[in-house]
Parts: sequence; structure tokens; C-alpha cells
Amino acid sequence: MTQTPRQMKLGAFLMATGHHVAAWRHPEVPANAGLDFGHYKQLARIAEAAKFDALFVADSVAAAEGDIASRMARSDHFEPLTLLSALSAVTERIGLIATATTSYNEPYHVARKFASLDHLSSGRAGWNLVTSDAAAEALNFGRTEHISHAERYARAREFHQVVTGLWDSWEDDAFTRDKASGQYYDPAKLHVLNHQGEHFKVRGPLNVARSPQGRPVIVQAGSSQTGLELAAQTAEVVFTAQTSLARAQAFYADLKGRLARFGRPADALKIMPGVFVVVGRSESEAREKHEAFQDLVEPQVGVALLGRMLGNFDLSGYPLDGPLPELPLTDSGQQSRQKLLTELAGQENLTLAQLGRRIAGGRGHYSLVGTPTQIADELQAWFEQGAADGFNVLVPHLPGGLEDFATHVVPELQRRGLYRTEYQGSTLREHLGLERPTNRFSQPL
Amino acid sequence: MTQTPRQMKLGAFLMATGHHVAAWRHPEVPANAGLDFGHYKQLARIAEAAKFDALFVADSVAAAEGDIASRMARSDHFEPLTLLSALSAVTERIGLIATATTSYNEPYHVARKFASLDHLSSGRAGWNLVTSDAAAEALNFGRTEHISHAERYARAREFHQVVTGLWDSWEDDAFTRDKASGQYYDPAKLHVLNHQGEHFKVRGPLNVARSPQGRPVIVQAGSSQTGLELAAQTAEVVFTAQTSLARAQAFYADLKGRLARFGRPADALKIMPGVFVVVGRSESEAREKHEAFQDLVEPQVGVALLGRMLGNFDLSGYPLDGPLPELPLTDSGQQSRQKLLTELAGQENLTLAQLGRRIAGGRGHYSLVGTPTQIADELQAWFEQGAADGFNVLVPHLPGGLEDFATHVVPELQRRGLYRTEYQGSTLREHLGLERPTNRFSQPL
Ligand SMILES: Cc1cc2nc3c(=O)[nH]c(=O)nc-3n(C[C@H](O)[C@H](O)[C@H](O)COP(=O)(O)O)c2cc1C
Ligand SMILES: Cc1cc2nc3c(=O)[nH]c(=O)nc-3n(C[C@H](O)[C@H](O)[C@H](O)COP(=O)(O)O)c2cc1C
Repeated sequence: MTQTPRQMKLGAFLMATGHHVAAWRHPEVPANAGLDFGHYKQLARIAEAAKFDALFVADSVAAAEGDIASRMARSDHFEPLTLLSALSAVTERIGLIATATTSYNEPYHVARKFASLDHLSSGRAGWNLVTSDAAAEALNFGRTEHISHAERYARAREFHQVVTGLWDSWEDDAFTRDKASGQYYDPAKLHVLNHQGEHFKVRGPLNVARSPQGRPVIVQAGSSQTGLELAAQTAEVVFTAQTSLARAQAFYADLKGRLARFGRPADALKIMPGVFVVVGRSESEAREKHEAFQDLVEPQVGVALLGRMLGNFDLSGYPLDGPLPELPLTDSGQQSRQKLLTELAGQENLTLAQLGRRIAGGRGHYSLVGTPTQIADELQAWFEQGAADGFNVLVPHLPGGLEDFATHVVPELQRRGLYRTEYQGSTLREHLGLERPTNRFSQPL
Repeated sequence: MTQTPRQMKLGAFLMATGHHVAAWRHPEVPANAGLDFGHYKQLARIAEAAKFDALFVADSVAAAEGDIASRMARSDHFEPLTLLSALSAVTERIGLIATATTSYNEPYHVARKFASLDHLSSGRAGWNLVTSDAAAEALNFGRTEHISHAERYARAREFHQVVTGLWDSWEDDAFTRDKASGQYYDPAKLHVLNHQGEHFKVRGPLNVARSPQGRPVIVQAGSSQTGLELAAQTAEVVFTAQTSLARAQAFYADLKGRLARFGRPADALKIMPGVFVVVGRSESEAREKHEAFQDLVEPQVGVALLGRMLGNFDLSGYPLDGPLPELPLTDSGQQSRQKLLTELAGQENLTLAQLGRRIAGGRGHYSLVGTPTQIADELQAWFEQGAADGFNVLVPHLPGGLEDFATHVVPELQRRGLYRTEYQGSTLREHLGLERPTNRFSQPL
């Protein structure tokens, strides 16, 4: 195999009407996109034509509700595993990353559904393992309050062990299906997990053969110390919100530096910061496009979004033209974001409403508003200067924003040799340059 | 609307290589069908071209394993919700019925995934609500033994309440999505469930809008007294195994007779017995086809299947040429089947191996081996003589057996005016002649 130059990875982060909180109000955006399969099919085709590595779908198992939620397009959307299963049937090569929480799920169901998706898609499944940032989820699963941060991560760690153990229930060649002898599988290649731990007791085996990728790709997005340790040990892709090149470099060095302790090479994990992109033919056109969305943000909606980003705070009691109030630290792991936004508000002397408006599009992700060249320059800088292996691309509105990125930015990256012009492999692991894991139970040859 | 004559309903019960336990060994059958999406796509297209009401997929959340299981094609297959989601993208009209157990699931997840499938498919989803017949499932969900029969049904009843309550979280017109005013939904049309019961505490609301069918169609298959009561109260389709016209008539009259007590008209529930069908151009050709599968049955495999049908018994210690041993009644609700098979073995003086061979295809469902005319005659008799509203069709092998039924039996039923020649409606409810349920929270106009 000839060594190809390092190229960046791209995820298309799909979110109904788009990432901008007011996108649904824009005349070009179908307001009912969240439950329109035709819309998602179109997005998948745009992203696949542009050779994206994967589609990425976030999740929450609770509905946004209340007076302000009724003014946001956040409460009705497809469930990610059913959506990506449907999309697997109308795509060929692009990866399919669905989010599922370890806090309010059973590992057997999660292992099984992702293995099934990996088979349906011939090896294109990824699991974004999250611990749930929405405390409201707890109330839908028999609890009166959210599981604590520490406990969520302890549970996540064990959950991951169980799921990967179940994925290894069958060796790759366990199913002999020999019509003549009548042997369907070789019993010596079946491994019963018999897991008994602090949080879970799961016998196994899984009723799905080992999947094309061996195991679906593990994606994570936590950024606390506990979250980073879990990622260093188990994640293959990390999705993260970083607000400057310097911060992203520090994050990258820190996380990659942790892998050796777990006996993993640094490139066994790909770091893909989120980046919010608004593309224009000129810089001023891009800014105008962006402003068109910003002007649709109702101040109280921006402030509500801000409260949620800071850790499930209700900021509706504070004056819109006053400063960001001092907030207590919460258990939902948003400390670093609080610090960041407090600094920003202080530096630029922003009111609460202004700060809300500021985060209405990228929600704390790095924002790029400019020409294809300007955007490619920034992505290249991050990629070449130790800040990123690739990016999870957020756009203000869908499908328009994704079309813009695919038509204008991707070709510019390709011209620079920074991005593939054709898929080389057929699985998500192959796109990402990740090895196919060996079965923990297999005998070395 | 003009009144059309009553026509029968047909479900295509899909099962990997087919329902015959030895189907996978047959030269015409792809042995790896259980995890081949192309195979299922083909099945869906055959069934849709023949205007079947629905595809039906059974389920278990545990793998068949052990020496005998290693000789059956039962341990690797797609998970139903992911599979049917994928099939929704490559079909247009046919219903999609997935099985999910209430014993080892959380109602929020089940409500959400089926609502999502109903949106993905524009109103074609059905939920086969089962209470789990495989005791092994318990061990994959933190338990050391199966939940008892009584407790499983108590849980199922409450589970159904929660799921349908969540499906009604939003009134049909709750999502106004008014770009000008900025109102995305009308808060007065959102209903928080706040369920607190014996088994579940679920706040809601669901994060999926009310689905095209209002609620996915509820299918059930239990046949104990408790099971029948639950069905009379909540099911819209009942799938059942009946071994003779007389028995099927008694079952039909009994179950339909129970509906009035719950204030439901008799046609609010459709009864669809399973029927195992082998089609030939002549009766002898059909018999030969059937024998070709029977000859592939290893005696110990047939006996193992028998043991499972009788209620998770291990019969491997009994002589193959001896009689069916007396078995204790178990908790898994197979009493009626035990009685039936004991009678059959006695009447015909069958050995254990012979009885195993007898049930190797239809697994206790009514078996029809003959010409299209003979098969249509029987189906017509059941349909017209108060035994069935339609049938869930099981075939020995796939895709061949389904192709046979679609090509030869369906046209014969159509000629007789007993079956549709075109879909009239677009949702599963419309196919089945079931009303769209009103939202429990809506104000009558
Ligand atoms: C970029 C990013 C994306 C995330 N996506 C989700 C999501 O889709 N669903 C979810 O429940 N939690 C999501 N989370 C929350 C994390 O799983 C985690 O619960 C939270 O960040 C707290 O953990 P930490 O303190 O380690 O960051 C996300 C977090 C980040 C930083
Ligand atoms: C025709 C038929 C099909 C069934 N399909 C399933 C199934 O796919 N998965 C499952 O776990 N249980 C299945 N069951 C089991 C029932 O849900 C129920 O648990 C079992 O029949 C015991 O209840 P009963 O005593 O009311 O019959 C099925 C039962 C029948 C009769």
C-alpha cells in the first residue's frame, strides 16, 4: 500500500432545520424538517456526494418543552437509530453515527441495535456514547433526579465493557453454515460474556453475528477529566467544542497524550472539533447570510439556549440588558463552558441578550463566517497545527448550509489535497483510518 | 364511500431463511439470509407487489445457543426495529410490524422508536406487543430468572398505558411552526403524561410529534386468559396459532365476544391466525417440496424445537423413538400447546422424533400443503366461516416460498374477490380497516 498524505476527516452533523436556533423561521428552511424523511435523505445524499466520512446525529431522550421551547424547533424529531437505519438503505458509503446514552439504556439493547445497523449498512455504523446532559431524561425512566456526574461515568465505563463484550460474542468465522454437515455455527467460536459488575449483570451472547467492522466505531464527546480518561481508554473519535486554535491545540495534546497509558497509539483516536460554518462568495455576503439568521433570534430564546448550555439554568428571571449573572457550578459538567462564556461576556462587555445571540448559531463551537478560501484556511491551520484530525461540520440551516459547504468548501479542501476526492474504503473504519478490532476471545494465529 | 365487500388481510411473516427449521440447508436457500439486507429487501418487494397488508417480524432478546442451536439458523439476525426502519426506505405502502417485548424494555424507548418508525414510513408502523416467551432473556437484563407470567402481563398492561399515553403527548395540530410569529408549537396542545404506576414512573412528553396513524397499530399474540383479556382491551390485531377450523372458530368467537365489555366494536380487532403454506402445481408436487425440507431435519433438532415449543424443555435425555414424556406445566404459558401436541402424539401414536419432525415447518400453526386452489379453498373457508379476518403467512423457505404464495395463491384469492388487487389507502390502519384513534387529551369538537 502506498502511503497517502494525511487527510482530514469530516462529519456532517445533521439537526433537522439546522444548528442555528432560529433557522426554522428562515424562508429557505422547511420548518417541519425534523420529521421529514425526504429531507434527511436529501442531506445524506449531499454529504455522500461530497465524500463526508459520516453523518452524525445527536440525541436526547426527553422533549424540550415550556414557553421558550415552544419557540424553538427542538421538540419533535426522529429517533437516531431508526433514522440512520432508514438512511442506510438509501446510501452506499457514508458512515452513520448515532448517539445513545449509557445513563438511561440497557447495554444488551444498545449492543444489538448498533450491531444490527452495522450489518444493515455493511460496516458503516458508529456509536456516539454519551452520558446525557439533559437532566430531564431521568424523569422518563423511573427516577426523580438525574444520575450524578461521577455515577454516570462509572456506569458508562461498565456499559462500554458490556457492549464491546457482547459484540465479541461470536468470532468472525463462527457461522460456518455448512449445509452438508448441518452445522450452522461452530460452538467453540461462541463466547458467553457472563458479565457481573457494579451496574450490570448480562449473560449474553448477542443474537447478532460479529459485525462487518468487528465493532461499530466508538465516538465520545465528554470533556471533564473523567470524560477525557474514558475517551483515552475507549473512544476512537472525539467530538468536542473548542473556541480557539490555542485551546484546541491544548485539548488535542492533552487527550492524545493520555492514550499511551492505555497502550494505545495516538492515531487510534481521531479528534474532530465541531465547527459552525457560514459560507458566502464574499466575506460580506457570508456575514449578511449570518445576520439574516441572527435577526430572527428572539432575545428570550437566545437566553434560554444560553441557560441550557451553561448547565440547565433558567435565566428567564434576569434582565435581558443586564450582565450574565454569577451562576453556581452544577453537576452536569459544563464548568469549562461557564468559564469560557463568562470570560467572553466580560471581555466584550456583552449583555445577557447579546451573549444569547452570540451563541444562537454555533452553540459554543468555533464559528467561521467567510469565503470558501477563508474557511479552508482556518480548517487547514487547525488540521496542520496539531488541533484537529478533522471536523464535525455544523451549518446554520439545512439543507442550504450543507449544500453550500459541499459545493464550495469541500472542493477547495480537495484542491489543496486535504480531503479525499473518492472514498477509498467501504466501511466507516476504513474512511477514518481506524483498525478493525480483533475479537477479545480469538486465539492469535 | 362505497361499501367494499369484506376482504381478508395478509401478513408476510418474515424469518431469515424461512420457517422450516431445516430451510437453511436447502440448496435454494441463502444460508446467511438472517443478516443480508438485500435478502430482506427482496422479500419486502415481493410482498408489496402482492399487496400484503404488512411485513411481520418476530423477536427475542436472547440468542439461541447450545449444541442443538448450533444446528439451527436461529442465532444471528437483524434486530426488528432497525431492520424495518431500513425497509421503510425501500417500500411505499406495505405495513411494517415489529415485535418488542414489554418484559425487558422501557416504555419511553419503545414509544419513541415506534413513533419514529411511523413517521419514517408515513404511517405504516405496527407494534407486536409480546411478554417474552424465552426465559433466557431475563439473564441479559440483570435478572436471575424470568419474570412470572402474571407479573409479565401486569407489566404489559401498564406498559401499554404508558406507551399510548406518550404517543398522545402532542395533539395532532400541536406543531404550528409559524415562522412569522415565532411560535413552533402551541403549548396548550402539549400534554405531559406524568404517569406513576406500579411498574413505571414516566413523566413525558415524547420528543416525537403525534404520528401519522395517531398511534402505531397494536398487535398481540398471547392466548392465555390473561393474554386474551389484554388483547380484548388493547389489541387491534391478534396473531395466533390454531390447528383446526373448529378450534379457530372457537377462539375467534371467544375473543371477539370479549370486546363489548371494553366498549369496543368487534371489528376494532382483526384476528389473523398463522398459516404455514407449501404451494405446488399439483398436490403431489407440493408434498414433494415439503418432504424435501422434512428430509433435512435431524431428529435431535426437531425434538429440540419441540421442547422449546412446549415451554423451554430440554428433551435431549429422552429416547428419540420413545413417546412424548409427560411434562410438568410451566409458567411460560404453553399449556394449550402442550395439550394439543400430547393429543396429537396419542392419536397418531407418534414417537418423539416423529412429533419433532411434524412441527419442524409450521411450529404448531395450521399447515396447508397443496395447490393454489386447495390453499385458497381452505383460507376462504376459515375467512367465511368465522375463524379469521386474515392470515399471517409462514412459508418453509425464503424467498422461494413467499414468491410461490405471491405468484400462485394471491392471484387465486384475488380472482375470488377475497383479496385486494390494489392498495386503497396508504397507512397500515387503512389497509386493515382500523380507525385512527383520537388523542385522549383532545377536546371533542
Ligand atoms: C460536543 C458535545 C456533544 C454532546 N452530545 C450529546 C448528545 O447528543 N446527547 C447527550 O445526551 N449528551 C451529549 N453530550 C454530553 C456528554 O455526553 C456529557 O454528558 C457531558 O458533556 C458531561 O460530561 P463532561 O463533564 O465529561 O463533559 C455532548 C457533549 C459535548 C461536549
Ligand atoms: C403466535 C405467537 C407469536 C408470538 N411471538 C412472540 C415473539 O415474537 N417474541 C416473544 O417474545 N414472544 C412471542 N410470543 C409469546 C407471547 O407474547 C406470550 O409471552 C406467550 O404466548 C405467553 O403468553 P400466553 O400465556 O398469554 O400465551 C408469541 C406467542 C404466540 C402465540
